[in-house]
Amino acid sequence: MGTVTVGAVRERAPGERRVALVPEAVTLLRRAGIDVLIEAGAGSGAWFTDAEYTEAGATVVSPEELYARADAVLCVGPPDPEGAEALRTGQTLIGLLEPLRHPALVDELTGRGVRTVSLDLLPRTLSRAQSMDALTSQANVAGYKAAILAADSYDRFYPMLTTAAGTMRPAQVLVLGAGVAGLQAIATARRLGAVVSAYDVRPASRGEVESLGARFLDIQTAQAPEPGAEQTGYARELTEQEQQAQRAALDEHIARSDIVVTTAQVPGRKPPLLVSAEVVGRMKPGSVVVDLAASEFGGNVEGTEADKTTVLDNGVTLIGAGRLPSAMATAASTAYARNLVAVLRHLVPDGELVLDPADEITAALMGGTAQTGGASS
Amino acid sequence: MGTVTVGAVRERAPGERRVALVPEAVTLLRRAGIDVLIEAGAGSGAWFTDAEYTEAGATVVSPEELYARADAVLCVGPPDPEGAEALRTGQTLIGLLEPLRHPALVDELTGRGVRTVSLDLLPRTLSRAQSMDALTSQANVAGYKAAILAADSYDRFYPMLTTAAGTMRPAQVLVLGAGVAGLQAIATARRLGAVVSAYDVRPASRGEVESLGARFLDIQTAQAPEPGAEQTGYARELTEQEQQAQRAALDEHIARSDIVVTTAQVPGRKPPLLVSAEVVGRMKPGSVVVDLAASEFGGNVEGTEADKTTVLDNGVTLIGAGRLPSAMATAASTAYARNLVAVLRHLVPDGELVLDPADEITAALMGGTAQTGGASS
Repeated sequence: MGTVTVGAVRERAPGERRVALVPEAVTLLRRAGIDVLIEAGAGSGAWFTDAEYTEAGATVVSPEELYARADAVLCVGPPDPEGAEALRTGQTLIGLLEPLRHPALVDELTGRGVRTVSLDLLPRTLSRAQSMDALTSQANVAGYKAAILAADSYDRFYPMLTTAAGTMRPAQVLVLGAGVAGLQAIATARRLGAVVSAYDVRPASRGEVESLGARFLDIQTAQAPEPGAEQTGYARELTEQEQQAQRAALDEHIARSDIVVTTAQVPGRKPPLLVSAEVVGRMKPGSVVVDLAASEFGGNVEGTEADKTTVLDNGVTLIGAGRLPSAMATAASTAYARNLVAVLRHLVPDGELVLDPADEITAALMGGTAQTGGASS
Repeated sequence: MGTVTVGAVRERAPGERRVALVPEAVTLLRRAGIDVLIEAGAGSGAWFTDAEYTEAGATVVSPEELYARADAVLCVGPPDPEGAEALRTGQTLIGLLEPLRHPALVDELTGRGVRTVSLDLLPRTLSRAQSMDALTSQANVAGYKAAILAADSYDRFYPMLTTAAGTMRPAQVLVLGAGVAGLQAIATARRLGAVVSAYDVRPASRGEVESLGARFLDIQTAQAPEPGAEQTGYARELTEQEQQAQRAALDEHIARSDIVVTTAQVPGRKPPLLVSAEVVGRMKPGSVVVDLAASEFGGNVEGTEADKTTVLDNGVTLIGAGRLPSAMATAASTAYARNLVAVLRHLVPDGELVLDPADEITAALMGGTAQTGGASS
């Protein structure tokens, strides 16, 4: 019995400016009867001061005190080796632990009785889990930031402007991948007045793209069907010749665009290559490519490097932007902390931290599937 | 008799990426019967290649050949000492020569028979000169870029966003000075969904600010009139007490804003100080201040430095942004080149370069006033 205590640590990954809890989230947790510790300086990268946390009801502590007292340790990314070592049996670690990318970490922790709750394992189709969906909230930040970053890197206007000196044409923006990040990039570029096109392999995304005022590229229907081939629509496998024609049509769109934003990511897997170096070579001088998938596993664009901006010989700027949520740390942390509050409300229904393996959401977050029997919430 | 030849030099000021002519302008000049030289590499900072200039009809040359052959030398900013020395008697130099800031340069050139045409001396109230107005075209670029730069430096969203994790409040943007740059900054921040307020000492700008969907700060009428003072409206001189109350009201707005963009510039004079260090000290951590007036003569914000970004101890980011047109060099050069084309069409009405001192526009551009007699165009 007794109050549950959670503690948010300072992130230690290089360049990571986010923090797991923000002051408004502390207020909400306190109101839910949860005690909150925060490591000194944890919020500084996202512009939150220790004083603001204290005012919201948190206790600012050293990492030693945090690991000693917290029932659950809250983080954004996976802990460094020192942080992992500090966790003790019976303690719970909650964050974006990337178990698909770093399985050894979670295995090691589980092996010595540390319970792990990975927000990246949340079932994304359950509507009652939407408020906990950190992958969505962070992708939303990344998509917005990608459009802003591209606008700041581009040496012309996004909108069409008519002035005494004549008309400036609007920027042509192409977004590849129309998931959460892609849709927010489309919406933001549209807000700024750019002419936006988008493409996604899922034909269902056409409606979402068009509802934002962007054009969905017609590279499938633009091809004449093979003479004699079956006419079964999307279900029919494309011939190799058709695939090549489709690829060529997409490449042509990429080469003509002023700005290309790529957003195709697959959790724990190498991202698909969408833009070849040959096609980047055909882009106009002054064009900008932002690759949201750029990481140590590669990216969507041949030649991008994680966290690195490169100006190629032909005047195209390649931006490896795999960590954009951290580059807009205040918004990203605020959204993430709200996701954590929703998770904690789920896991602490009644004054105690309960990790119920029979609950569909909890089981998924812990890396399993719900055991038989009714879900508890 | 014979064709007029103009030559655009490569800019040599540190950090200057603009170029006086862009390929589309070369096409227009050629069509007007003017021969065009361009110094090799002049367009590279704005992403224009020598090949594009050649294709448009220009001849790419060395600086020596350019100074030897050009009737008029075209530039953006004032030339460096070497460039000034290369100019010869009878030659005309056309650009933003800043004669109010650097009077010695123009005096020296005029003294040895080099004619100077300073676009910054254009009468800004003549509607037939609007297409030549480079101060306006460059201020337009600066205002847009200021809003984008601030958005990219700010770690939250500009628009209000409603997501599964709750609502994100919109950014509060304050623009001080509602001239060309200020109005474009307002329009761009509004496009992105920010809540925008603005202030200008000219009461007439209220209508323009409000037409863009921004709020004009009511810091004059918010003050109760002094008992017994004359009630003559704007014409009445404010008492010292009223001025202090007005100052305090403006300071309060500044301190509460997330983003402040200042745009008050006076050609050739020290810019007015609008934001004191004390008020910056009262702003929230994570706030951003962009000072478009920041130069070696000071700026609108106490503590800003030209071309320098500083994060203060209280978490406020100060951006000295006095040269934003150069930071968006393609758009700025394109607009500037259109202004130059309009100027050249005016000065070369009939196949010859004519600097008619009786013409109102020409006389102003040369630093004088029109002599008696009808204007020639």
